[in-house]
Amino acid sequence: MDDEDAVLATNETFYRAFANGDGKAMEMIWADKYPVVCIHPGWDALTDRGSVIESWHGILQNAPPVRCRAAQAFLYGDTALVICEEHIHGGLLVATNLYVREDGIWKIAHHQAGQVFELSADEEDEDVVEEDDEDEDEDDGPDSSNVVH
Amino acid sequence: MDDEDAVLATNETFYRAFANGDGKAMEMIWADKYPVVCIHPGWDALTDRGSVIESWHGILQNAPPVRCRAAQAFLYGDTALVICEEHIHGGLLVATNLYVREDGIWKIAHHQAGQVFELSADEEDEDVVEEDDEDEDEDDGPDSSNVVH
Repeated sequence: MDDEDAVLATNETFYRAFANGDGKAMEMIWADKYPVVCIHPGWDALTDRGSVIESWHGILQNAPPVRCRAAQAFLYGDTALVICEEHIHGGLLVATNLYVREDGIWKIAHHQAGQVFELSADEEDEDVVEEDDEDEDEDDGPDSSNVVH
Repeated sequence: MDDEDAVLATNETFYRAFANGDGKAMEMIWADKYPVVCIHPGWDALTDRGSVIESWHGILQNAPPVRCRAAQAFLYGDTALVICEEHIHGGLLVATNLYVREDGIWKIAHHQAGQVFELSADEEDEDVVEEDDEDEDEDDGPDSSNVVH
């Protein structure tokens, strides 16, 4: 199995633990020799392993029916990025998962997931930006402003 | 300058180009030998360098007054992660920036930014989750459900 296949298989293991509410498998897949970071949607970053693992045990008490789709791996030597969609309750998020080779085994070192806005056919981009501004004042981000481009 | 300082300096260069609307500096800082990926808030992932650079040129036509704060670097050999806050128009986002050492120079290989929900003193976590469900049906993410924990 080449690195790309191995990283994608580890990404599948991550989402299997997530969907199955398997706290032990989730704990095992996170790196323990390299630093770990996790940014849950709407949260500030968790930057120590204890907080990250604790947050996942909390999530997995009510594990949502998450499905990972369209996973793509990007290799950087002994680290790798997997970008994938998370389908949950009919909603769509896009996730960054960073993996690091630790004693020859790929482990997850970072996860960030964020919502993807889906425009209806009669929606204009400007409307989405305005809607964001009304819903969450702090959502006037540098990048969502680019939705109009 | 050690790797942590060098990566944080490169992160500052990224945000200087961003805030100054400097398209040339932004283009120069992205990796060109390793794959690049960018996830703007609300967008699906851009997974080729041409699309990423084009998206930034679009953003920089109306560069927002972004300020990077609380940057932390995490090292993984020849790659490094910087997690930081983005303050824009009084709003708060949290960003993942992945850097890779390319010919001895740190370049950015991946950026994802997402909104941070800020709770008012009289808000309960559940209210935030419900509000998300009302505002964006697809925002019932695996992780925002964890806001209640």
